[in-house]
Parts: sequence; C-alpha cells; structure tokens
Amino acid sequence: MDLKEESLKLHRDNNGKLEVKSKVKIENQHDLSLAYTPGVAYACKEIEKNKDDAYLYTSKSNMVAVITDGSAVLGLGNIGPYAAIPVMEGKSILMKELAGVDSIPICLKTQDVEEIIKTVKYLEPTLGAINLEDISAPRCVEIERRLIKEMDIPVFHDDQHGTSIIVAAAFLNVERLTKKPLKDMTVVMSGTGAAGSMIAKMLKRIGVGKIYAFDITGVIDKKKYDSYNFLIKELIDEGTYDTPENHDNTLASIMKNANAFIGVSAPNLVSKDMVKSMAKDAVVFAMANPVPEISYDDAKEAGAYIVGSGRSDYPNQINNVLAFPGLFKGALKVRAKKINEEMKLAAAYAIANIIKDNELSIDYIVPGAFDKRVVEEVSKAVSDAAIKTGVARITKF
Amino acid sequence: MDLKEESLKLHRDNNGKLEVKSKVKIENQHDLSLAYTPGVAYACKEIEKNKDDAYLYTSKSNMVAVITDGSAVLGLGNIGPYAAIPVMEGKSILMKELAGVDSIPICLKTQDVEEIIKTVKYLEPTLGAINLEDISAPRCVEIERRLIKEMDIPVFHDDQHGTSIIVAAAFLNVERLTKKPLKDMTVVMSGTGAAGSMIAKMLKRIGVGKIYAFDITGVIDKKKYDSYNFLIKELIDEGTYDTPENHDNTLASIMKNANAFIGVSAPNLVSKDMVKSMAKDAVVFAMANPVPEISYDDAKEAGAYIVGSGRSDYPNQINNVLAFPGLFKGALKVRAKKINEEMKLAAAYAIANIIKDNELSIDYIVPGAFDKRVVEEVSKAVSDAAIKTGVARITKF
Repeated sequence: MDLKEESLKLHRDNNGKLEVKSKVKIENQHDLSLAYTPGVAYACKEIEKNKDDAYLYTSKSNMVAVITDGSAVLGLGNIGPYAAIPVMEGKSILMKELAGVDSIPICLKTQDVEEIIKTVKYLEPTLGAINLEDISAPRCVEIERRLIKEMDIPVFHDDQHGTSIIVAAAFLNVERLTKKPLKDMTVVMSGTGAAGSMIAKMLKRIGVGKIYAFDITGVIDKKKYDSYNFLIKELIDEGTYDTPENHDNTLASIMKNANAFIGVSAPNLVSKDMVKSMAKDAVVFAMANPVPEISYDDAKEAGAYIVGSGRSDYPNQINNVLAFPGLFKGALKVRAKKINEEMKLAAAYAIANIIKDNELSIDYIVPGAFDKRVVEEVSKAVSDAAIKTGVARITKF
Repeated sequence: MDLKEESLKLHRDNNGKLEVKSKVKIENQHDLSLAYTPGVAYACKEIEKNKDDAYLYTSKSNMVAVITDGSAVLGLGNIGPYAAIPVMEGKSILMKELAGVDSIPICLKTQDVEEIIKTVKYLEPTLGAINLEDISAPRCVEIERRLIKEMDIPVFHDDQHGTSIIVAAAFLNVERLTKKPLKDMTVVMSGTGAAGSMIAKMLKRIGVGKIYAFDITGVIDKKKYDSYNFLIKELIDEGTYDTPENHDNTLASIMKNANAFIGVSAPNLVSKDMVKSMAKDAVVFAMANPVPEISYDDAKEAGAYIVGSGRSDYPNQINNVLAFPGLFKGALKVRAKKINEEMKLAAAYAIANIIKDNELSIDYIVPGAFDKRVVEEVSKAVSDAAIKTGVARITKF
C-alpha cells in the first residue's frame, strides 16, 4: 500500500485520530454524585471565589487548543477550516503522545482577523494555552500579537516560532562544531513570511552577525523600505535584516561568500554553483517541503559542510516537533501567563545541549524527533525561564 | 469524608476530569508520516473536495461540544464561565462513559447573545453536534433557535429538552399504569422557564388534555397576555398553556382536582393539603433540586399515587442523564443535521418502553440512570427517527 492509501485508511478506520476520555470512573450513583451533581457544585464554588482555582479543579491545567482558520495549511494553501481538521488533530495527538499534554483541535469558520481574535479570547476559560497553526502571513503575526497582549494564557503560533527555535538550536551547535563564532557569520535567509521572519529574529538574538534576506521581490534592501509590509519594515528597523553592500537583486549575488543559507521558501531555488560560491564550512538548511531549495546530495556535492532539511529521510531534520511539545508542557507546568522570548531561547539552548560533545557531528546537530530526552529537557528549561521572568503563576509544583 | 471533601479531592487529585487521547499510535517516523506530514495531506485534500468527508476522516463524526456562558449553572446562578467548567467537564465525561460519545467542554467568556451565537457558529467544523448547557432563560431559547436555524449540525439545549423527554416518558408510563388516557388529564406546571416550557410543549404533544401553569407572577392566564415574555405568549398562542376557569392566582387554587403536578421551580412550594385536594391517583413530580417542591414522604402521606423527583435517593428519579447520551449517540450515528421534535419524541417513547409491563410499578416508571438498555434503545430510536424525517446525512452505517 502506498503512503496515500495507508494514510487515508488510518484516518478512515479510526474515524479521525483523537478521542476524549474520562479520568474518573462513573459506574454508579455515588460516582455520579462526586463528578456531577450535587458534588460538582463545591468545585464550582471554589473557582467562583478564586478564578485561578480552575487550574486546580479542572482540566484547564493541561489543556491546549490547536486553533486554525485553514488559511495556510501545510503547503496546501487556503483549503479552509474543514479540510484543515486532519492536520490539527495530528498536532493535538502529537502533543499528547510526545509530552502528555491534552489538546483539542479548533477550526474556525471565519477568516476575518478581528473575528478570530474575539473568538479565541472567548474560548479562554477552559484552556491552559493556545497553539495557533497554519494561519496565513502576515495576518498570523497580527493575530498572535493581539492575543498575547489581550489574554492571560500563553498564545504561541507554531509556524512562526517552532521552526525558529530549532534553527536557533542548530546554529548553536554549528558554532560548537565549527568553532566559528556566530557573530562572524553571514546568513542568507530565503523567505520572509511567518517562519522566515521569526528565524531571522531569533538568530540575531543568539548572536548571528549579519542576515541578508530574499523573497519574491528580490533582495530585502532598506533602499526599497516603503514597498515592504509591516513585518519586513519592522525587521529592517530593529536591525534584524541587514542590507548587503553589493547585489544585483538575485539570490546568487547575496549567497556569494555567505556562511549559511536558510530556505523556508520554494523548491529548487538554489543551484550547486550558488553553494560552491559560499564561504568555507558552508551551512545549508533547505527546508522547503517536501521538495527543498536544494537536495541534500546536491548541496553536499557542491561542498556544503553541514546540510539540513525538513525531511526525515536525510540527516539533520529541522522539525518543529522538537520544540512545541516540551514548550507547552513547560509552560503549563507553571501555569504560565505568556510564552516569552526568554522561554523560547531557553528551549533552543535545551535542544542544542541535548547532544553531548562526543555525539555532535556534521550529520547530527539536532536530536531526532523521537529522542525521549527532548521533551523533558525543553519543558524543564521553559518552566525555569518562566519562573525567572515572572510569567509563572506558580513557582513550586 | 463528607461529599464536599470527597468531591473536591476527586477534582484536585486528577486535575479535572477529562483528557484527550490518541486513537492511533505515534512511535516512529512512519507513524508520524501517516498521522501527520506528509500523509495527512491526503485526508485534507479529500475533505477539500467534499466537506462531508470530514465525518469520515476526522473525529467530527463522534464529537460533541458542551457549551455554556456560565449564566445559570445548576442552582448556583450566574457564576460565570470559569466556575462553570467542572459542570461542563462532568457532562462531557458522562457523554463518553454512558454512550461512548467524545465531548469537549467550552465555557465562553461572553454573555452577549449575538456574540455567543456567532462564536458557536464559528466552532462548527470540528463538531458533530452541540449541547448547550446552563444558559439563563429566556436567552437560551433565542440562542438555541437561532443556532438550529443557522447551523448544519444538531444543536440541543439540554436544560430545555432533556428533562422534557424524561417527563414525557414518565407520563407515557403513568398512562400505561393507571389506564387513564392522557387526554383526560389536567396537569399543573410550576415553573415557566426553559425546562417548564419545553415539558409543557412535549406533554401536549404526547396528548395531555389540559396544562395550567404557575410562576412567580401567579397563574398563567390569557387575560394577562400582554404582561408575559415571548415564550409564555408563544405557549398561550399555540394552546400549550390553558387558562383555568376559576382561580384566585394561587398554586393551591389550580391544583384542586388536578391529576398531576410538575414542579421545576422552588423548594417547599407545595403543602400536603394541596396534594390532598388533587384528583384520585394523583401524580406528583417535584423536581426542584436539591430540595423539591414537596418531599417524597409528604406527598405520599398526602395520598399521591405516583411520586417522582430529581433525587437519586428516592424512587422515580427524573434525571436527564437518561436522555442526552443516547440522543447524541443516535444523532451522530446518522450524521444528523438537526435534532428535531420527532427525534425527541422517539427518545421519550424509547425510554418509556424499556420498562416491561411486568416491571412497571408506581415506584418504577422510569429506568435507572445506569440501566445499560437505555442508551442502546434511545440511540436506535433517534437514528431511525432522523432517517425517517430526512435529517440524516447517511441512512446506512
């Protein structure tokens, strides 16, 4: 059976991928009187007195909603909220299987930014955190920022920050392996959408020297400032995107002598010659999915030192499944109000440091998706960072 | 340990009552490629072609949301959406434990009617049906009616219809037991809110002769028509509420010679003398909770023939846990678009007929909450009625 048939059969035979279970037994009248009326009223009254007791007496403490409007699902585009359900269910069960976090998929039948913001806010009471998913850019940035500001629980758009955490972890290990300081590196970024922007921000935060960006309009150049959307303008303003000295508006022109290429853009954008023109010990993370900007084999043949992709069938899979399960587990453990920059950075360092010095190699710079150490280390680091930065509701657990 | 301590401990020790589980295993890269990327994209594409395939490839097929705004929770009043969570979780786990239906609690942080309607509509994609719960009257009636009209999945407000189904079932069995035709019965209804109104409607539908209603304003009388809310006006207009010939605006005056009393109102409203004044073989369902309009013992001493209440420690518990699990199971099985009157009636007849002629007695007119036959019979009857009335998406399963 091919992948298509096997996957459709799995979804069909199980009628979807998730179910809800009771954590308590309901077998007789006494059970009913404890979990439902009349006993349940006592838990209600405690929460009425102190709203935060919802963390104690309800499943809120471990519940994440995976929320989308179906506007940018995988590489499939705007397929709408119904067709998006299988992806959100997949995300929800990964949360549970990898980190023990309960999660429900919510696919909203509206693509209006204000309506999405309002609806998500109305859903807060039963939720411990929110994972936004597959919402098109730059709408997703506005939605996430507003919700972070206006809600009292963590809101995290995985497409923006999930990949950025893993790429940052990978770069920390590139530095460990090559001994070349990040501050001396020039990185070329292909793609300035949700993922690309946040990768660039985080790389600057961990100390990368220069970042040149490229998108469908060509090389991002401050001379063309007025033509950009608010997000690119912001990244120029804050000094995340640098403007290269000489370029002819092609990707090739800015890859010359660069130390690293990161692609979150489109298939086959990068030629072997372009890789050959890069500096010594070149790093190529070609993450367009399923067909990368350049294949692992071509990049290697052209002389790249470290090559990574989104694919599981080649070394160095840059997969955000390494970040979000532990991140949410850590945030929930301390009943965090936010997932802030310090928590994301802590996750990146924790992922990088899972690989011991004697394990680290050019084909092993990030842990595998099923490495059991990952969730544990990430969640611990994230909880600690939340406590340290004052966004934790509890500091002992 | 008393009930309070035992119930709080149960909620605290488990951190709430429900969890989400995966129906498929995710242990290695191959599992991931089937349930998540890249395989999941095939299920997305099928649903993109045909929206109804969401019933086939996702958990929508078996998923009910229990939705409240926390405005009328149990007898606790408007305690808000946070304090309401334990009740909604209780409802959700009952759905699963009694009928195998997956269910998630949603407590909305708004009590604005239009905002609630809009939000619930936005949530439709992942849901097979909606159970509205503990929303104050008469807002709940407007919200339910609008949602039924504007949505393509069943919307059912349990506080309105759950109890009405069980009371109707009980009356069908009163008729079987006493041989007195329902059309010759006069029923006094105390309480004209969400539950009372729908009980009255359903009793008329199964053939009850006359219904006199009483609420905080006194006896419902068409001479005072202009002073009533839209719901009471509607019940007068359609002939559900009858106006008694002679009354002095007291409950006592309309209970004289009545065949049955139904209370969904307030504690201790009914005296033994009032019961004594009723007709022969009087039926008293005193369902105010936890303290009924008159106690089982007092009603019996005053000569009532059949007595029921909402309490589990006396015979004839009128408990809507008998209706909603099987009702939703039956609606979901045929992927119903609505839960219509025929389906509710079918549920009432199914519940009544579970008790065989040789089992039927004055202290056993409705089945017990844990009678395994109930869900099976109710769901079958409801599925059949949905198919017959054309609201089923599928007729074979």
